[in-house]
Amino acid sequence: MTRNIRLTIEYDGTKFFGWQKQAAKRTVQEEIQKAAERLFRKKIRLIGAGRTDSGVHAEAQTANFKIDTDLPLENVRNGLNRYLPKDIAVVSAQDARPDFHARFHARGKIYRYTIVNRKARSPLKARQAGFLPYKLDIKAMRKAAGHFIGKKDFRSFQARDKKERHSVRAIKKIDIFKKVSLIEIYIQADGFLYKMARNIVGTLIEVGKGKISPGEVRYILSKKCRRDAGPTAPAKGLCLVEVLYGL
Amino acid sequence: MTRNIRLTIEYDGTKFFGWQKQAAKRTVQEEIQKAAERLFRKKIRLIGAGRTDSGVHAEAQTANFKIDTDLPLENVRNGLNRYLPKDIAVVSAQDARPDFHARFHARGKIYRYTIVNRKARSPLKARQAGFLPYKLDIKAMRKAAGHFIGKKDFRSFQARDKKERHSVRAIKKIDIFKKVSLIEIYIQADGFLYKMARNIVGTLIEVGKGKISPGEVRYILSKKCRRDAGPTAPAKGLCLVEVLYGL
Repeated sequence: MTRNIRLTIEYDGTKFFGWQKQAAKRTVQEEIQKAAERLFRKKIRLIGAGRTDSGVHAEAQTANFKIDTDLPLENVRNGLNRYLPKDIAVVSAQDARPDFHARFHARGKIYRYTIVNRKARSPLKARQAGFLPYKLDIKAMRKAAGHFIGKKDFRSFQARDKKERHSVRAIKKIDIFKKVSLIEIYIQADGFLYKMARNIVGTLIEVGKGKISPGEVRYILSKKCRRDAGPTAPAKGLCLVEVLYGL
Repeated sequence: MTRNIRLTIEYDGTKFFGWQKQAAKRTVQEEIQKAAERLFRKKIRLIGAGRTDSGVHAEAQTANFKIDTDLPLENVRNGLNRYLPKDIAVVSAQDARPDFHARFHARGKIYRYTIVNRKARSPLKARQAGFLPYKLDIKAMRKAAGHFIGKKDFRSFQARDKKERHSVRAIKKIDIFKKVSLIEIYIQADGFLYKMARNIVGTLIEVGKGKISPGEVRYILSKKCRRDAGPTAPAKGLCLVEVLYGL
């Protein structure tokens, strides 16, 4: 019987050229496809909810694939984990409806950006956080974050080299938490343009430094020009924490 | 003027043979002494609050050294960080009283042990947590933890190969937190015998699995024999989070 299996996947993106399979590059998608091929002794085509960039992590990427097997789900999970490299793990495997599609049915995603904000870098957090030794105005950053909320054209926050035709996305929520020297920025949107999360974070950091005023975010959005926004925040601070599906 | 400088140090213990200098081995103490030698152009003798084992991490190890310098503290911290390898950072440098001694004056230490407790390993937490795919009885573990509290002879929890003459220590507190699939065990004591924290955690895990009953902890303590306690939990889950000093 052909089953449609949905996977929740965690990975440390440090040593990957992102999610999507590319010739001669180590990618998460290909490593999982290779592990599945060893487990099932046939090829699978893995559909991910979204492509994470090179160096970006995931706590709960979602993907699905069709396979003719009667292997119990627990054995699918454990079997894949046996063949996967240490920096990828299948957290759960579930049977999905036959028409479930990890990308098309995703209603939204939540990314978290982590920043170590103190005078000294943090060896324990270095792999999974950006580092900023300046004082940041968190209040101003929260105010600026408010201007991103809603259905807007995010062309100014899209990577120059990989433009999509339709650049309107809806940001539902941006939460900024600060605990001692750790800042966490959660961004929830119906979808993200290429590098959009990191470009928004880079702009919020400029606001935190006082180089951009919170109100200027509206102007930057209206200009639809990448040059006006802040720089792209480093990939290692970003983590895909949830993919949201409808009922 | 000779100053007594106190450092708070963070390190990722993965690639160190512990804190203490040993011939031909990479240790935290020696890396910091080397960095200080480059910064001050003279040798220093760094006194750590305690020796962490090979593979054990620290968020806030404390150490002190005497030096004749007029370098501002900020430059001491930044200068050391410039010369230190990525897996060590000086979080802060302060001037201490001339008689301050990081080891002799330490009144206590707090260690945290982190366990990923779910069916799949966690690539993002792998470097800084143990992994247990079995269900653990947290209530029983908390009950067992209660039996460790107080001034007791911890001979049963001391490494066989490095015995100290006096094995009486006072454990002030053991807190066990569980958030989703992450368990954190905090142990505060006036001092720790070699591998004591990891042997206590190993025993608590046996309790969690139902192999040792909470009440048996008292019996194990009274027997004063290492063989009766649980196995040593892996080093990578352990982190020195605070060194406590008196007023």
